[in-house]
Amino acid sequence: MSFPPRAAAEPLTVMGAGLVGSLLSLYLARRGHTVNVFERRPDPRRAGADVGRSINLALSDRGWRALEGVGVAEAVREVAIPMYRRVMHDVKGQLTHQPYGLPGQAIYSVSRGGLNRRLLELAEAEPGVTLQFQQQCLDVNLRQRELHLRDAETGAEQHVAFRRLFGTDGAFSAVRGALQKTDRFNYSQSYLEYAYKELTIAPAADGGWVLEKNALHIWPRGRYMMIALPNLDGSFTCTLFFPFEGEESFAALPTPADVEAFFGRVFPDALPLMPELTEDFFHNPTASLVTVKCFPWAFGDEALLLGDAAHAIVPFYGQGMNAGFEDCTVLNQLMDQHGDDWETIFEAFQEQRKPNADAIAEMAVYNFVEMRDRVADPRFLLQKQIESKITAQYPGQWLSLYSQVTFSHTPYHAAWTNGQRQDAIMARIMPHIQRPEDYDRPEVQDLLQQEMTANPAVAVPA
Amino acid sequence: MSFPPRAAAEPLTVMGAGLVGSLLSLYLARRGHTVNVFERRPDPRRAGADVGRSINLALSDRGWRALEGVGVAEAVREVAIPMYRRVMHDVKGQLTHQPYGLPGQAIYSVSRGGLNRRLLELAEAEPGVTLQFQQQCLDVNLRQRELHLRDAETGAEQHVAFRRLFGTDGAFSAVRGALQKTDRFNYSQSYLEYAYKELTIAPAADGGWVLEKNALHIWPRGRYMMIALPNLDGSFTCTLFFPFEGEESFAALPTPADVEAFFGRVFPDALPLMPELTEDFFHNPTASLVTVKCFPWAFGDEALLLGDAAHAIVPFYGQGMNAGFEDCTVLNQLMDQHGDDWETIFEAFQEQRKPNADAIAEMAVYNFVEMRDRVADPRFLLQKQIESKITAQYPGQWLSLYSQVTFSHTPYHAAWTNGQRQDAIMARIMPHIQRPEDYDRPEVQDLLQQEMTANPAVAVPA
Repeated sequence: MSFPPRAAAEPLTVMGAGLVGSLLSLYLARRGHTVNVFERRPDPRRAGADVGRSINLALSDRGWRALEGVGVAEAVREVAIPMYRRVMHDVKGQLTHQPYGLPGQAIYSVSRGGLNRRLLELAEAEPGVTLQFQQQCLDVNLRQRELHLRDAETGAEQHVAFRRLFGTDGAFSAVRGALQKTDRFNYSQSYLEYAYKELTIAPAADGGWVLEKNALHIWPRGRYMMIALPNLDGSFTCTLFFPFEGEESFAALPTPADVEAFFGRVFPDALPLMPELTEDFFHNPTASLVTVKCFPWAFGDEALLLGDAAHAIVPFYGQGMNAGFEDCTVLNQLMDQHGDDWETIFEAFQEQRKPNADAIAEMAVYNFVEMRDRVADPRFLLQKQIESKITAQYPGQWLSLYSQVTFSHTPYHAAWTNGQRQDAIMARIMPHIQRPEDYDRPEVQDLLQQEMTANPAVAVPA
Repeated sequence: MSFPPRAAAEPLTVMGAGLVGSLLSLYLARRGHTVNVFERRPDPRRAGADVGRSINLALSDRGWRALEGVGVAEAVREVAIPMYRRVMHDVKGQLTHQPYGLPGQAIYSVSRGGLNRRLLELAEAEPGVTLQFQQQCLDVNLRQRELHLRDAETGAEQHVAFRRLFGTDGAFSAVRGALQKTDRFNYSQSYLEYAYKELTIAPAADGGWVLEKNALHIWPRGRYMMIALPNLDGSFTCTLFFPFEGEESFAALPTPADVEAFFGRVFPDALPLMPELTEDFFHNPTASLVTVKCFPWAFGDEALLLGDAAHAIVPFYGQGMNAGFEDCTVLNQLMDQHGDDWETIFEAFQEQRKPNADAIAEMAVYNFVEMRDRVADPRFLLQKQIESKITAQYPGQWLSLYSQVTFSHTPYHAAWTNGQRQDAIMARIMPHIQRPEDYDRPEVQDLLQQEMTANPAVAVPA
């Protein structure tokens, strides 16, 4: 993709230099714009910034496409770990597997901090980009087009004029806070009754991985679960998704001894691999899980929300970052189409993205049940095997919802509609199937043929 | 009902002295509490306060019960106008009627300002109540239990400590704003694409009413509507519910001539009765219609939201004030049950009221379609006649949703569940009915009998 250099008519302002803000700044700069970026936190590339904890994310096709759009995908791929399958750990430590897609298809574990730093370096290397860190946004005056910022280090406050503001300042966005004060702004924030806490599986003594490296590990326990993603240093970052309150909950584990006993009982194969368990458990935050929806995302041709600021979702589909990165791809396409007609660009962006953001928000909540409960069910694993057979037999007419979301660029809302159709068909097919071989029985094949004819796919995934 | 006087252990603080805040203060004071009340607006009883516009509301059984609880119902009834039926005005000015309930049942048009002033007078007459007006709430510090207030007249700011805070400060509640900053606060604000504007039908030259006095008038026009409620002075307050934008919308009527032409075309019988139409139209606000939902409503035993602050709804069921008043009735019952155990009272209050608030919020949106569109449909009016016959034939087993909401104390969520059941039955009965007499046909009676047996009422309305 080429970026026609353009007269920098007016500087653009980006509030928030996290993953989406830094990638967006890069896209805007490559189009010839002057871009002023403000970020609340310290520069993550500076010594002393919080690089202690290793947080990783699953990058999939939508994210890769956005990185390719600014030529950074190859560099990121070198430090990404492909995960080809789910590995489920039961309470006895026995393992089962489920491939994510076709052979060779994978989601990629990447370091959040490392990716953010890489994008910031690239953005700063562009001539038009200025980054300012530790700038807390106290207020956004949309009508007067002015930011009120406070330097967290010096305490100095400044008022900064803007012409066009991109709000990429995350789930608790200050830019969205300003939009929320305008009339007829639809908004919701909705919390799960669950918290998450990051924990660590240590590397082996030789620096290798103590669990299968190229997999996402899940300890599904019905009402809760733990997952683990590999890091380059041989460790895994685990995340425990667990109720805030109740019989089995964070509130029910007040002491290190409680935590050890609980892990020994429900995650017995993981406990010996987690030497820092109780330290992590009582040091790391118990964080809440929120879904944020709002509309409109644009304020005239003056401000636009992207990423978590527009659509924060829960992490169970591994799509938060990918959806935010896809926002950058889509905005870039619209800039190609509409030139400097920002009002049209903003309007088209929100009309196109809003239904997709709503769909992935729903799917993310839905997938929590699948991950913590259904993946432990032999019937579910059998259904996944049958689904692979259907995909092979009806190419272009059937693709698992997971693959549509993860390995395609089908708009999320089309994927979700298709997924619901496929779910309904599976619910009618599966009662006739007890073993994988039953799939080839004539009555199953006849029924499937009828269903495929009666319920054609809504959109063929790209 | 008796109010056992009680040692005033600690003063209670009420933020907001609108309808719900003033009634709540009265309830609390009658129980022997010291009550400090703060209100953002000027005292509505003072000369110069905005008493020019005559806004009225429909008071129904839930509201009356709450007023009876503090002995004020009779005084209010003297200045309330019963409305026994809907009168629909078609585009030719022809009228049809639909009774709201049984003979003698009515909803009551009351002046919002008059009712608020009356409740404030009664509250102020209680020894323990202090009212402070023009106190804008800048901030609520829940953990330090402190209000930050600014006097709108003098500009003086003060910090006021509280022990227990009741947030009755309306749809844009400052107390709710403080709760919203706590973790895991679920919140949504959702706007209709419609606005409303208040207009006036003038009294007759002799001071009488130019339309039927004891009725609520509706001009249903499919995608929009106007309604009118009677005032004591012979006028009617009209409300136009109309899209913000589009072919027929506020945006499409920019000039007085446009407004006159539009009213002449779609409300021809009303236009000659509205001498101040264009003045009202361009002077009165074009106001938006929001539904606010949130949870929790309580913060420990320290703060509780009631009324619109907890559950603002659109006005199409005439239940906003009634629901807020019912909050006072329920809170008072819980204070009877649990004494000074405020944590239990607050917890029980939100658990009991939240599903009911959600139900009336849904019904209010649903009723907009009924009022603006379905009431103009002869089939709908026929269905209402049939429903009256069923109610008479199956006492205790069938009551129209409207009557359950308006003329009963059945919890809103039970009413809504019953209403949906009845809707489903009507949808199966009505295809067999072309005229009221068809109701007595044996096949209709048999079908109805089967349906009533197969789908028993969820809860018998009280």
